[in-house]
Amino acid sequence: MSGEVKTDGLPLSPLGTAAGPEPELLCIFGTGDLGRSLGQRLLQTGYRVVYGSRRPHSCGPVPQGAQVQPMVQSRCVIFNCFSIASSSLPVLMGFYYQVLVDLSNNLKKDIYPEANAVYLQRLVPGAAVVKGLNTLSAWTLQNGPLAGKQVFLCGDSAEAKQAVSDVATRLSLSVVDRGSLSAARELEDFPLRLFPEWRLPLRVALGLTAFFFFYLLIRDVIYAYVEKGNDISFRIMVSLANKVFPIVSLIMLSLCYLPGVLASFFQLYRGTKYRCFPDWLDRWMLCRKQLGLVALGFAFLHAIYTFIIPIRYAVRHKLISLVMKNNKSTPFDFDKTEAWATDSFYVMGILGFFLYVLLGLSSLPSVGSALSWREFTFIQSKLGHLTLVICTVHGYIYGWNKFLRPSTYKWWTPPGYMLCLVVPSIVLVLKLLLLLPCVDRTVTRIRQGWERTEPGEERDEIKATNL
Amino acid sequence: MSGEVKTDGLPLSPLGTAAGPEPELLCIFGTGDLGRSLGQRLLQTGYRVVYGSRRPHSCGPVPQGAQVQPMVQSRCVIFNCFSIASSSLPVLMGFYYQVLVDLSNNLKKDIYPEANAVYLQRLVPGAAVVKGLNTLSAWTLQNGPLAGKQVFLCGDSAEAKQAVSDVATRLSLSVVDRGSLSAARELEDFPLRLFPEWRLPLRVALGLTAFFFFYLLIRDVIYAYVEKGNDISFRIMVSLANKVFPIVSLIMLSLCYLPGVLASFFQLYRGTKYRCFPDWLDRWMLCRKQLGLVALGFAFLHAIYTFIIPIRYAVRHKLISLVMKNNKSTPFDFDKTEAWATDSFYVMGILGFFLYVLLGLSSLPSVGSALSWREFTFIQSKLGHLTLVICTVHGYIYGWNKFLRPSTYKWWTPPGYMLCLVVPSIVLVLKLLLLLPCVDRTVTRIRQGWERTEPGEERDEIKATNL
Amino acid sequence: MSGEVKTDGLPLSPLGTAAGPEPELLCIFGTGDLGRSLGQRLLQTGYRVVYGSRRPHSCGPVPQGAQVQPMVQSRCVIFNCFSIASSSLPVLMGFYYQVLVDLSNNLKKDIYPEANAVYLQRLVPGAAVVKGLNTLSAWTLQNGPLAGKQVFLCGDSAEAKQAVSDVATRLSLSVVDRGSLSAARELEDFPLRLFPEWRLPLRVALGLTAFFFFYLLIRDVIYAYVEKGNDISFRIMVSLANKVFPIVSLIMLSLCYLPGVLASFFQLYRGTKYRCFPDWLDRWMLCRKQLGLVALGFAFLHAIYTFIIPIRYAVRHKLISLVMKNNKSTPFDFDKTEAWATDSFYVMGILGFFLYVLLGLSSLPSVGSALSWREFTFIQSKLGHLTLVICTVHGYIYGWNKFLRPSTYKWWTPPGYMLCLVVPSIVLVLKLLLLLPCVDRTVTRIRQGWERTEPGEERDEIKATNL
Repeated sequence: MSGEVKTDGLPLSPLGTAAGPEPELLCIFGTGDLGRSLGQRLLQTGYRVVYGSRRPHSCGPVPQGAQVQPMVQSRCVIFNCFSIASSSLPVLMGFYYQVLVDLSNNLKKDIYPEANAVYLQRLVPGAAVVKGLNTLSAWTLQNGPLAGKQVFLCGDSAEAKQAVSDVATRLSLSVVDRGSLSAARELEDFPLRLFPEWRLPLRVALGLTAFFFFYLLIRDVIYAYVEKGNDISFRIMVSLANKVFPIVSLIMLSLCYLPGVLASFFQLYRGTKYRCFPDWLDRWMLCRKQLGLVALGFAFLHAIYTFIIPIRYAVRHKLISLVMKNNKSTPFDFDKTEAWATDSFYVMGILGFFLYVLLGLSSLPSVGSALSWREFTFIQSKLGHLTLVICTVHGYIYGWNKFLRPSTYKWWTPPGYMLCLVVPSIVLVLKLLLLLPCVDRTVTRIRQGWERTEPGEERDEIKATNL
Repeated sequence: MSGEVKTDGLPLSPLGTAAGPEPELLCIFGTGDLGRSLGQRLLQTGYRVVYGSRRPHSCGPVPQGAQVQPMVQSRCVIFNCFSIASSSLPVLMGFYYQVLVDLSNNLKKDIYPEANAVYLQRLVPGAAVVKGLNTLSAWTLQNGPLAGKQVFLCGDSAEAKQAVSDVATRLSLSVVDRGSLSAARELEDFPLRLFPEWRLPLRVALGLTAFFFFYLLIRDVIYAYVEKGNDISFRIMVSLANKVFPIVSLIMLSLCYLPGVLASFFQLYRGTKYRCFPDWLDRWMLCRKQLGLVALGFAFLHAIYTFIIPIRYAVRHKLISLVMKNNKSTPFDFDKTEAWATDSFYVMGILGFFLYVLLGLSSLPSVGSALSWREFTFIQSKLGHLTLVICTVHGYIYGWNKFLRPSTYKWWTPPGYMLCLVVPSIVLVLKLLLLLPCVDRTVTRIRQGWERTEPGEERDEIKATNL
Repeated sequence: MSGEVKTDGLPLSPLGTAAGPEPELLCIFGTGDLGRSLGQRLLQTGYRVVYGSRRPHSCGPVPQGAQVQPMVQSRCVIFNCFSIASSSLPVLMGFYYQVLVDLSNNLKKDIYPEANAVYLQRLVPGAAVVKGLNTLSAWTLQNGPLAGKQVFLCGDSAEAKQAVSDVATRLSLSVVDRGSLSAARELEDFPLRLFPEWRLPLRVALGLTAFFFFYLLIRDVIYAYVEKGNDISFRIMVSLANKVFPIVSLIMLSLCYLPGVLASFFQLYRGTKYRCFPDWLDRWMLCRKQLGLVALGFAFLHAIYTFIIPIRYAVRHKLISLVMKNNKSTPFDFDKTEAWATDSFYVMGILGFFLYVLLGLSSLPSVGSALSWREFTFIQSKLGHLTLVICTVHGYIYGWNKFLRPSTYKWWTPPGYMLCLVVPSIVLVLKLLLLLPCVDRTVTRIRQGWERTEPGEERDEIKATNL
């Protein structure tokens, strides 16, 4: 091949030709951790980066390849990485109409009367302020793969948002537009949120745990002390906890499937799917995944607590005492029914736990996103209800020969496992009702957009859904 | 900074300037769940959205910011979110040459003689129909992060596909072009598939489980009943299951490594890697990951079944009976060989399970994609074969002192663990053969593109691969 | 709608119009696995693909839709998928100024004096060589979703890099620019790396395991043999290992939190966060995640080893012997303190393991990327230190009544659990010091950019960080 270079012919890329060989220029205010990390990434992605600083010679280290200027010299997108709006900002920005992206966050909620970005817009009225990218941290920019990370934008100028969105897309970020600058406050609260969707499930779990702990403490430990003078308080640590955990786990699992059943009954009653559910049901449905994961956590604890039973001091002591007492008395008969019952009990527990773990795995983001809609529904609905059935049976077998004994009802209170079977049983009965062919058909038709028409009402003939 | 706004200077972004400050317009037919969710997302991403409806005032709620029009007023990309092709479609589409994206799906396979998209193309011959995005569900569009989700397109017009692809890319979706509109049928079947790649492994698992269950039922339970009159049917629940699970798990793990070994022998025999493998081997190799994960599931069940052994009624009873019988007789001697053997047996099982779990973790999509090719190969090949070796040794130790006893061969049948060691042993022997230096060298050369040349045959001198 | 087609009106897409309906042309050299898989993907993404081969009729199969040409006929981006630089390359490239992407990798490190891409650039001086995409394997291109996979580019021509980057972005890849062609060597080493960040943690784990194994071997097994003539070597397999694993796990968990504490003290001492940490501390901090995951692996082994304790032959034998010996002697009294202590010990272990698993789950890429910065910090710092506290307490309870007995100090050496508590105790004491209000306030201010000013030193008034 000759060394001759032809520059005519097809352009290499429309973008490349439009902007010339010179890469686009971006400006960053602030040489803190965030500013430096952002600059580093932008340089790696192929942009030119300039830092704005009024004292270019004492502003700390900037990434290799970036320059420092006392004032922005040309029109470009500016990233404000100062944590506070500085009075030097208008000077730094120079005389061009700029796009100013505000990445700042607050340390606490509601410490300022207005959003930082709104304040900034008042400070530099000639700029198009875009709030956004503020969920990125210096650490993520330095270490993590950004690909697919969701960032939010808001601002009053569509053109400015488009410009920022282009930069974010080049960084492989996934951009969501949240509307006008009035949404800035909401965006500034994003990095401060601490598991908002986990709060309700965790509170429910805490409440149930506390209730059943004290209920069983009274029934088991205090009852034994008051009525028989036995101090069995050592049981609190393992035996009692191992009764509370499965109870809470089973109730939370059924609470995870109850709202879906309730929603179906709402739709049946109203005869349409186009009316909103009550607010509490909506919130409940949105935290089903978290309810299920908390339930899985309790089931996991229950499993481990069960595995260590035989190495506990108290259990070994009981076994040895039993042997020493029974020594010469009547032979210790093998009860086949007991063997069948306990083994079935364990098997149900194991299978339930296995399905529980499968459900948990399928709710991992990367696993879930690889499933088709039908597969996801199959796992979360069919497999989920099967898990609930198996775990409920596990509970029923536990009490199969106890519920008729008077000794079960200490102080006229039902044992914990009976209480915990109430909610799952209701959920399963309701679900069974929904599976009746006539009910099922109506629900399916409603879900496909059909409505129970009432006289004098007319609607568009096309009711469409792809769900 | 003065409030003065300069609009000359560098353009903010080529796209922004080309399309003007006005964002692109998209049209959606159908205000069902899918139509509304899609519109919501498109609005968030910065598009203008118009819903097409012949009765704009009674078509149900549309997302805030979207308009409803009785007919498409300008040229734009149209998303058909009706589940059925409506006769009003041609009217709705107006008089422009439109790109019509068909998102519809069927409720079942093969209920229509032709693909929806093909029917649509006949209905509106002037439009460029693109089938695609139909794997998106209303739920995903509302809640999930779309980033990186794979969507498929097909259509006869490259220009139309490009336009749709641009929209999908803006939504952070990952687009795969599947060719002409004749592929529409295939695309419409995607959302209906239910774990197609899991079917073969699950069937193999089911078959093996059934076979070994009945085999061991006959050998253990029925044999004891017929020959000795013992009813030990209670063992079915745990003891028998805990023999079947490890057997199936080990066989499936070896089935997971067998096709790779077979493929190497095929290549050795043929002296080239450029000839296709037989069809059955190809299909087998494609479901290796699923085979391994099903094997892990069985290993997990085996582990939990083992952990609960000591709390079983039958085991406790046996222990107590043993103590009571042995009471005054000869002292119960400690057998060091037995202690070593059983402990080694357990340790091999634990290490095998640990490696199994590591393999399973590395096949999580998000973990696997973070590995380099060499790392992935290291884990799946080196670590995988190590797991197979350890699990096979676990099996051999189990039978170390039993295979010579006549009582092992009840009714002249070999015990289950012997049967299950056949396949893994074959795989390991074949793998050892492949690791012999002379064989290994030839296989490596073949994999790098070398071919055993035969007389009169000539090929391009450059055989390249980066694998 | 009339069949009439209007081609005026809004363009369908700026790109589509610029390039015309004809999709962009790309060229691939090499029809090996990599070349074919890449071509397949590019065709699916909507490009036209041509293979360059000097013998078009004998170059092996190419994907359907691709052509084979003896020389590149027009200007386009060329992908070099040969594993070796062929002398026919300059001829193949034709007479245009081309962008040549070099995807080649080496089989081993440092087998050639210069990077392949640099050699290629000398071979075809008229082309703009871009090194990159070489972390893609044929397997990934065929099977995996590419979305979000990170690829690296380097090259001397910004325009050429932009062109390649555009193709990669269309393939949903996430592109990172690594600068000029001099970085090619580094890029060529990427696919050869084998868990570089895991090396240090694994070496530490191996060292600690070996040390404690031999230490406990001497103290337990050899001591018993020498002093009492007991051969208890069978304990090596399970009992000894189950002492070594928790020790190594706890030490590694504390090593995972030590560097963070040290870094705070460094910052306190220096009064600024703008000075770099010593090199060893930086490297230590970068492998904290791996340290933690290795610690989790050991904790997992410890848990399973504990679960199988009661089914071990030695343990059953000891239990039976105990019963038979104690038979008629004094009754076996129930010690409530012992019951409380052992149960607390187990509960601490279980809770610690539970939190350990939570920490491990949150370090899965897909889970971690869904967390906000504050959530991630909460889990890794608050929950992490809580885990360390609980596991340390687990260790202390183990030795609560043993540390005063002379029999504990065999051969005047402290037992293993004492040694293993040293590092975690130090970390926790240092962390407590940092939590003192006065110290905490200073550290927080330093982290927000404040510096202990020394006379004569002046810095920019704006210290900004969003961390």
